[in-house]
Amino acid sequence: MVEDLQKTDMSRLRRYHERGAFDRPTVYGILDAQPMCSVAYTIDGKPLVTPTLQWREGDHVYWHGSAASRTLRNSTRAAVCMSVAILDGFVLARSGLHHSVNSRSVTLFGTASKVEDPTEKLEKLRHFVNGLFPGRYDELRPDGPQDIKATTVLCMPISEGSAKVRTGGPVDDEQDYDLPIWAGVIPVTTQVGAPIADPRNLSHVGVPDHVRTFTYGGQSRTDPNQGG
Amino acid sequence: MVEDLQKTDMSRLRRYHERGAFDRPTVYGILDAQPMCSVAYTIDGKPLVTPTLQWREGDHVYWHGSAASRTLRNSTRAAVCMSVAILDGFVLARSGLHHSVNSRSVTLFGTASKVEDPTEKLEKLRHFVNGLFPGRYDELRPDGPQDIKATTVLCMPISEGSAKVRTGGPVDDEQDYDLPIWAGVIPVTTQVGAPIADPRNLSHVGVPDHVRTFTYGGQSRTDPNQGG
Repeated sequence: MVEDLQKTDMSRLRRYHERGAFDRPTVYGILDAQPMCSVAYTIDGKPLVTPTLQWREGDHVYWHGSAASRTLRNSTRAAVCMSVAILDGFVLARSGLHHSVNSRSVTLFGTASKVEDPTEKLEKLRHFVNGLFPGRYDELRPDGPQDIKATTVLCMPISEGSAKVRTGGPVDDEQDYDLPIWAGVIPVTTQVGAPIADPRNLSHVGVPDHVRTFTYGGQSRTDPNQGG
Repeated sequence: MVEDLQKTDMSRLRRYHERGAFDRPTVYGILDAQPMCSVAYTIDGKPLVTPTLQWREGDHVYWHGSAASRTLRNSTRAAVCMSVAILDGFVLARSGLHHSVNSRSVTLFGTASKVEDPTEKLEKLRHFVNGLFPGRYDELRPDGPQDIKATTVLCMPISEGSAKVRTGGPVDDEQDYDLPIWAGVIPVTTQVGAPIADPRNLSHVGVPDHVRTFTYGGQSRTDPNQGG
């Protein structure tokens, strides 16, 4: 039995609540489709938001950074907010007000905690790399204790938050449909280009499958029905 | 004479400072290339970050939302932080630690203020629509006083903040270049799809130029050298 995300005063959708979703398959699908995220902290009472990459394991979300980062150091056991947003298209309506974007987004609230145990930390980083590029981590020069020490891995349970999804065409005021104005959607997608090999790659090293078959931004890479 | 952005305790780059930029052409180029942004607020001492669209006019950045939004209402004359991030590629190195992303991002700090005057507000919304789709706003059903009233437009001077840009291939530890590991870059770009007309468009209405020629996410739409 997988519970929905908590609808709280912070996470409930005040506007367009019909676009909101609290079920884990929807939330996980968006998190898994887009590693890029924004994490917001409060530093000395003021907001700070930084772009970073997130990855999900079960019902937790992870992100990482340099152990030297003051932001990450201060954010442990502090309230954070994470946002993942995927733009799917521009919605052009017959009046300015009804213009919109088609998008999928997730906002999560919670308290960040550090993954302290080096073995667990390494396992999380391994999952991060392998989640994007299956099997890659195990082919790399192994991380040493100094590499692990230099990295901070933060973690937050996925419990309070919501997803928001808009799809479809414009919705105009009824009387505006008679106007001779082009309305519709301009779709936007993410395109993965041909890989660019490092000139210093050894000559016999070919492009691995995890690079050749890399996809991004579309479907969930992991089964969204597999909860925690 | 156009001044650089302020390097403050918040905006200076503590890590990889060689990737940082404070000059307005760089900052404006990124803002103009990517309307999607994350705006962070502090609500009751906790961070809240929401995805929205931003647009720039001279040395100010704007965003908008419903006048009914509690977040926007509370954020007036409060500290905010805006982040715009464009992912350009995944950088695959020979060790986990040196994996990275190529990206362009801007982080801005400041105090949001509301555009109160209805005429000025309409002018800002016009600039927002026309900035994405040249000339479109002037072809729409005009916004009435109620439309304007229902919309909150927020504004922030571009003064404290920085840009961060990473380009190029992986940078590995010297001894790792001898390893038989594929390293390189997987480029990621944004693709604009063929426009999807609303089925309720009048039959004689063709696709306008501002839809046909729409581009996004790449080059700056406005001259980055034209400062405030």
